[in-house]
Amino acid sequence: MPVIETGNTIVSEIPTIGKIRNTAERINPYIHHTPILTCNGINHLTGGEIFFKCENFQKVGAFKARGAVNAVFSLSENEVSHGVATHSSGNHAAALAYAARIRGITAYIVMPRTAPKVKQDAVAGYGAQISFCEPTLQAREENLVRVVDKTGAVFIHPYNDYRIIAGQATAALELLEEISELDIVLTPVGGGGLTSGTALTVKYLSPKTKMIATEPENADDAHRSFRAGKIIPSVHPDTIADGLLTSLGDKTFHIIQNYVDNIVTVSEVGIIQAMRLIWERMKIIVEPSAAVPLGAILTHGIDITGKRVGIVLSGGNVALDKLPW
Amino acid sequence: MPVIETGNTIVSEIPTIGKIRNTAERINPYIHHTPILTCNGINHLTGGEIFFKCENFQKVGAFKARGAVNAVFSLSENEVSHGVATHSSGNHAAALAYAARIRGITAYIVMPRTAPKVKQDAVAGYGAQISFCEPTLQAREENLVRVVDKTGAVFIHPYNDYRIIAGQATAALELLEEISELDIVLTPVGGGGLTSGTALTVKYLSPKTKMIATEPENADDAHRSFRAGKIIPSVHPDTIADGLLTSLGDKTFHIIQNYVDNIVTVSEVGIIQAMRLIWERMKIIVEPSAAVPLGAILTHGIDITGKRVGIVLSGGNVALDKLPW
Repeated sequence: MPVIETGNTIVSEIPTIGKIRNTAERINPYIHHTPILTCNGINHLTGGEIFFKCENFQKVGAFKARGAVNAVFSLSENEVSHGVATHSSGNHAAALAYAARIRGITAYIVMPRTAPKVKQDAVAGYGAQISFCEPTLQAREENLVRVVDKTGAVFIHPYNDYRIIAGQATAALELLEEISELDIVLTPVGGGGLTSGTALTVKYLSPKTKMIATEPENADDAHRSFRAGKIIPSVHPDTIADGLLTSLGDKTFHIIQNYVDNIVTVSEVGIIQAMRLIWERMKIIVEPSAAVPLGAILTHGIDITGKRVGIVLSGGNVALDKLPW
Repeated sequence: MPVIETGNTIVSEIPTIGKIRNTAERINPYIHHTPILTCNGINHLTGGEIFFKCENFQKVGAFKARGAVNAVFSLSENEVSHGVATHSSGNHAAALAYAARIRGITAYIVMPRTAPKVKQDAVAGYGAQISFCEPTLQAREENLVRVVDKTGAVFIHPYNDYRIIAGQATAALELLEEISELDIVLTPVGGGGLTSGTALTVKYLSPKTKMIATEPENADDAHRSFRAGKIIPSVHPDTIADGLLTSLGDKTFHIIQNYVDNIVTVSEVGIIQAMRLIWERMKIIVEPSAAVPLGAILTHGIDITGKRVGIVLSGGNVALDKLPW
């Protein structure tokens, strides 16, 4: 295939289905093939039949393990010889630390001083080198540049990277291999790694299935960017769904523009209601971000009456001392 | 087999392995074959390899669905024509209501006025007839007699009944069919339905496996009865494990005496620590009672170093507004 330039994005680098399958083979020894759960009570309430892909049970408690393992294991021995690096206060930090440990290399993680102790402990528990910085994007990026300059580590972006996107795409690959004839697939959208990966897999394997991303009203940059046809970053996102505070990157936006059918927003109340419903009825722990797709259904943003629906439950890392009810 | 009287217990009525297998066939259309989960983090902490049988994912959120469905479906058309009845403020009430609904008969449930609203709603949601009484055992029993006299419903005891015991025994049947060579199987013990059923299955199918019941220190009637060789009822049990407040019955005690190797007690702190660990590491919701076996391990009541251990996670019904941490 010739290399086609569309703005800054080289289309030929978008992962093909073959690439996504190869990615699955590469990462399978190191990640969980997560279960798919259904719940009669929630089906009854929503009028549809929902298949929950439980990435809350994934290594490090979130789908992020898929992309990070793929990125780390895609690198040559030479490339990884000085380790990998990123800045993150959340699941990507733990995922990269996990992936680095199993490859036997060092992960350098720049974290804001304000990151919850439990997340610091998780990253440190995987043996990563943490350097703390002020809790601003500028400080994080400056510190990361310094760390990379000093160590020679390879920077792994949390979502705007085709290796990451291909990794996240494997959750939907497992979902579609097990559950046929889905009418709709739903993901939460933050930086867009999960959504763009899922959209690729869905449209490659089941073009008739609607691919819909769901986003907190209070952090709706993807929704506005999708409508406007250009990236409009978040300014002051403020949502309980702390995994969805980031804005789209050019690579994830390009895929979302071309492979996602719609983006629906959800109120904070709707997210909390959905999260509690999943805890109570399914007896599983999901983080607020993971509840956003069901929130979109419960608040009538998406009608699933009579439909077969796949939902990727993105993660289960939540502070048990600070529940939102 | 001749009928052998040992005190009040007719030994020939103790469910055989054939009976337990028949029970599984009878109830399988109406209950979940629950998953068995493992957790590397918890294995690492405990030094053993633990297989968690997830009855928190069972219908009505607890193993109690097994016994109740078996009891209700064991009765003849004639016997059930006037419905079934019990007194319970907990999972047995919901389980009996669920079983009655799928058989198309009425369940009459006597509940203390003080039962949590969420439990009242669950029982009412299955279409049961609830009558409320004062929160004393005497009031519950008197009200039950009145309901049975008036309606002709069949009383289904929550645990001291061989049909219930045979039903609860099927959880371990599924566990042992999937996981071989267990060194130890652990259950929480309250009235003893789950423990006696599990003990029968374990000793029938894998006599070398140690069967150990675990109990809150603050509700240790089973432990004391087991040591004394006679039933010593609880006087003022006071534990966060609200499913384990009841005392053994003659049938469950007899089986426990003969088929259980040991009973180990656990502090309240140990139970809460174990519950939180399961929530955080496994991302599943279990009620305090379900955490008692892991609590016994974490507080060094049971050493599982190098051992393969089955644990029945009894249920997942917990008030999300009143978490113990």
